[in-house]
Amino acid sequence: MDRKEIVASIVGLLRREKLSAFIIPSGDCHGSEYVADHWKCREYVSGFDGSAGTLVVTVEGAALWTDSRYWLQAEAQLDGSGITLMREGADGVPSMAEWLCSKFAHGRVGVDASLYTVRSMESLMRSLSPLEVVAMGDIFDELWSGRPVMPDAPVTLLDDEYSGLRASGKLRRVRSSLGLSHGDVYPVSALDEIAWLLNIRGGDIDYNPVTVSYLLITEDEAILFINGDKLSVSVVHKLRNEGVEIRDYGDFDAALSQCRDKRVVFNPSSLSWRHYELLRLGGAVLEAESDPSGVITSMKAVKNPIEIEGFRRAMVEDGVALVRFYMWLEEQLHLGRRPTEWQSGERLRQFRAESPLFRSDSFAPIVGYRSNGAIVHYEAPRRGCKRVGMDGFLLIDSGGQYLCGTTDITRTVHFGTPTEQEKRDFTLVLKGNIDLARAVFPEGTRGSQLDFLARRHLCAESLNYLHGTGHGVGHYLCVHEGPQSIRMNENPVPLKAGMVITDEPGLYRPRKWGIRSENVMLCVEHSSGPFGRYLALEPLTLFPFDVRSIVLDMLTVEQRRWLNRYHATVYDRLSPGLTAKEKVWLMGKTKSI
Amino acid sequence: MDRKEIVASIVGLLRREKLSAFIIPSGDCHGSEYVADHWKCREYVSGFDGSAGTLVVTVEGAALWTDSRYWLQAEAQLDGSGITLMREGADGVPSMAEWLCSKFAHGRVGVDASLYTVRSMESLMRSLSPLEVVAMGDIFDELWSGRPVMPDAPVTLLDDEYSGLRASGKLRRVRSSLGLSHGDVYPVSALDEIAWLLNIRGGDIDYNPVTVSYLLITEDEAILFINGDKLSVSVVHKLRNEGVEIRDYGDFDAALSQCRDKRVVFNPSSLSWRHYELLRLGGAVLEAESDPSGVITSMKAVKNPIEIEGFRRAMVEDGVALVRFYMWLEEQLHLGRRPTEWQSGERLRQFRAESPLFRSDSFAPIVGYRSNGAIVHYEAPRRGCKRVGMDGFLLIDSGGQYLCGTTDITRTVHFGTPTEQEKRDFTLVLKGNIDLARAVFPEGTRGSQLDFLARRHLCAESLNYLHGTGHGVGHYLCVHEGPQSIRMNENPVPLKAGMVITDEPGLYRPRKWGIRSENVMLCVEHSSGPFGRYLALEPLTLFPFDVRSIVLDMLTVEQRRWLNRYHATVYDRLSPGLTAKEKVWLMGKTKSI
Repeated sequence: MDRKEIVASIVGLLRREKLSAFIIPSGDCHGSEYVADHWKCREYVSGFDGSAGTLVVTVEGAALWTDSRYWLQAEAQLDGSGITLMREGADGVPSMAEWLCSKFAHGRVGVDASLYTVRSMESLMRSLSPLEVVAMGDIFDELWSGRPVMPDAPVTLLDDEYSGLRASGKLRRVRSSLGLSHGDVYPVSALDEIAWLLNIRGGDIDYNPVTVSYLLITEDEAILFINGDKLSVSVVHKLRNEGVEIRDYGDFDAALSQCRDKRVVFNPSSLSWRHYELLRLGGAVLEAESDPSGVITSMKAVKNPIEIEGFRRAMVEDGVALVRFYMWLEEQLHLGRRPTEWQSGERLRQFRAESPLFRSDSFAPIVGYRSNGAIVHYEAPRRGCKRVGMDGFLLIDSGGQYLCGTTDITRTVHFGTPTEQEKRDFTLVLKGNIDLARAVFPEGTRGSQLDFLARRHLCAESLNYLHGTGHGVGHYLCVHEGPQSIRMNENPVPLKAGMVITDEPGLYRPRKWGIRSENVMLCVEHSSGPFGRYLALEPLTLFPFDVRSIVLDMLTVEQRRWLNRYHATVYDRLSPGLTAKEKVWLMGKTKSI
Repeated sequence: MDRKEIVASIVGLLRREKLSAFIIPSGDCHGSEYVADHWKCREYVSGFDGSAGTLVVTVEGAALWTDSRYWLQAEAQLDGSGITLMREGADGVPSMAEWLCSKFAHGRVGVDASLYTVRSMESLMRSLSPLEVVAMGDIFDELWSGRPVMPDAPVTLLDDEYSGLRASGKLRRVRSSLGLSHGDVYPVSALDEIAWLLNIRGGDIDYNPVTVSYLLITEDEAILFINGDKLSVSVVHKLRNEGVEIRDYGDFDAALSQCRDKRVVFNPSSLSWRHYELLRLGGAVLEAESDPSGVITSMKAVKNPIEIEGFRRAMVEDGVALVRFYMWLEEQLHLGRRPTEWQSGERLRQFRAESPLFRSDSFAPIVGYRSNGAIVHYEAPRRGCKRVGMDGFLLIDSGGQYLCGTTDITRTVHFGTPTEQEKRDFTLVLKGNIDLARAVFPEGTRGSQLDFLARRHLCAESLNYLHGTGHGVGHYLCVHEGPQSIRMNENPVPLKAGMVITDEPGLYRPRKWGIRSENVMLCVEHSSGPFGRYLALEPLTLFPFDVRSIVLDMLTVEQRRWLNRYHATVYDRLSPGLTAKEKVWLMGKTKSI
């Protein structure tokens, strides 16, 4: 079927079900950031494959909302589909709710209730009022012939050597924190929460080593609902030793329906509306958990000493790979060879893959030369991308999944001679990165209070970047992880010692160049005294910044001192794993300025 | 009656009304920060006269909650009353709600419903659940023999020359912003909102030139409910010209009861629970206004050009008075005379009062020498306070109400030779003040995003101050004014061009010294370009910082440049109003460093 036929078949469904519209968001039943092909319904209908976008099909036509990152891409991909592109956030463009409410004074709007959490469904209902939201099932089971099957990559166990805590111990902490007693139930649907809690890893979703599953925790049981084909006998046996029983993925709904009169503690920002309704109609006594981030997410965010040690090890592996990659690239360029952006990303992955601990990239690498660096979520196509050269900045944002931790690093490097303006821009970004890295702050401080440290030097020149400054990073898990963040928007979660968070200010000059400097940081205890306890950030990432792109006079004494100390650490930690030639190269890149 | 008898009479009321407890908060029916004597019921019962505190009387005894600023004072003032001091915020001290809920498993708790807004009542009900909150009237009308009468200071009109906008024009803006149409009603109870809107000023409450009154705005009427004795014939006439009718203060309740089937737009954070209930029971169609700060407060916060010009003029008047005061104080000290803290505050008020535009202090001045400077809300008693000398810092936080604007300034000055540690502390505070003053930030930025600029140098040394960094300032109105703020806590209100806000970091070393450096700042447009619109802060306050207390090496080039430019501006603006001798003095204090 082509896209117009697919839309027509949805319109047929609208007529049958007496609906005015059907909403097809991104996402899966587990609230994942990246989803398996099975759940790429919005892409199937529209052809638009950006990571964020919501499609609405009405009897009078379809429209797709996506934010500015994806406007160009969506325009191209929607071409010929008959679907209208709605540039979310642009002046005069109505939101999806405004658009639907203006089109229909009353009526019913259908959604797949498993793709909305309790919170997001409540908010959808509010925004669409007086239109009625009709909670339906997955209409694509029927409509999508040849739909990719559910992923079934094998599950592996993460050894205690890497996880630092056994599943049984983590389960104990969760139960005690929630006060689960006889008969109480806590359903878990977020895949990274399940993976972290049970020390299991999978391959169902690109970049995020999770496995599609649900979990029910009771006072004395933990039942993992998963396709049994993904588990070896030995994995099942070991999970059982941790107190985890296995049931089929498809049995989860039935288990929720059988909670009559049981106290069910749930996370309204994670449990799907569909499951909430199953519980409610089944007579469960529902109680939202007190931690708005969810108890598992909050525990997962504070890394234990073994996880932290693993991060440090992963950063060494990553740093060594980056040294080899940038040496290789410099050599290519000096030999007059000009690898493409795509080839460079591929070569970088290969260098990373030389580590026995490497498992995969932690996200699709962003390799943007010159003006492509200004496209914040640029993904170089295999064919038709730029060749890297020596006439401008090369921005590479990439990371690896290692058994012992996850990395995420952005460096912007100039292989020729940067212009004065390029250097000024680079230095403004670096000053912000360093100021945030140097911050000492009282316990209880939220990311939004620190965010401006990374922006102020840019803002002083009426510049800025329109993305967040920092996100949490999982431990051999999702590279974007909550609940903490450093961004302009308020997020009530304070930073805590043991949390891992990125520091990544940037500056993007459309059609010219893009600059971003990103390190992964560990939040650590700094001091304690009459004014309370203080925290600080310590860089985990180990790779030099491009010193030749700095205007030295623009750095303060303290910023320079920080940079020199950081570079000395980079050399100290990476050099033991390097060859003599590599050491010389790194020595040159990290020498004191 | 002594306090025990008063408590006993309240206990009698508890028994009659079958109540477990009665709560007596600070505050009046208008949500004022400072209240007239008539409303000082908590002080009447307990003897504690701090600005913040809540008294609870139960059949088994009474307790008073107050925050750390007032612990010492409350301890002394509660002595002999039989009332237990509850140190709010101290480890292990239950909140009022926790305490009541632990004392009574069920029961009724009485409050004067006119002292709670809709929001604060809802929150009280939630926190006290399952106890029932019983909304009652003002029990002190009966219990308090000799209760001070309602204040009745005369009302004056603020000329357009100072207000910049006529009342009729402001009323038009309010009506249009709320979309008031035929029959709709908007009740106003905040005294500074009424004063600003109608360009009236009063003298009912110390420091805040407001007048006790209510206002009802309809599509074509504005009815001021006020004690007619406070209005001259000419004021009534002029108000009528602006479309304002006068009714008696006591008639407001009846007017609210007569809103059957009318749309009543209200501010839940401002309308009292008592009035809300009157409206509801009277059959009004209640609708919370969309601006959570309240439309009048939001308009009032963005100063018009005439108000801004008035602030500038007030700052010149204030700066001249401060020059004369500090010259006088230096002279006294050099002559070996040592005025007390109280005398110094008094003398400062006299210098301010030399301006024909001066009306009163804008708050009780804080004059703290040495260790008294470390008491954040210190108020020097007339007798028994310290004498000012040359062996430590003198912190003076003071301000004036001028016809054309309100001032609020803190300077910390050492008249002898500061120690190295005193200088380091002083410089850390000043660096924060300057960094915030120098900030350029994108439109939409909230105060909580900027707050850390003022703290970071202190935090880097594991120091901090536990108060906000900045508050809004009224125009010849309340010295503390919302909705904007600069503080660690999230406040969703963004800073806007035209807003006035203080910049006042501090550092307090208990039993040693206190330092605070405060300027009033104007938020101004800075630039506009491809990255959006940018705002900046411009100092309105005109008085030098104590340069001799600065460790010059601790300032960055930019901080030093800012300070020199600021001091040059101070000299330029103040010198035209100074004598030759005063100019020489100020020249010395503002010379480039």
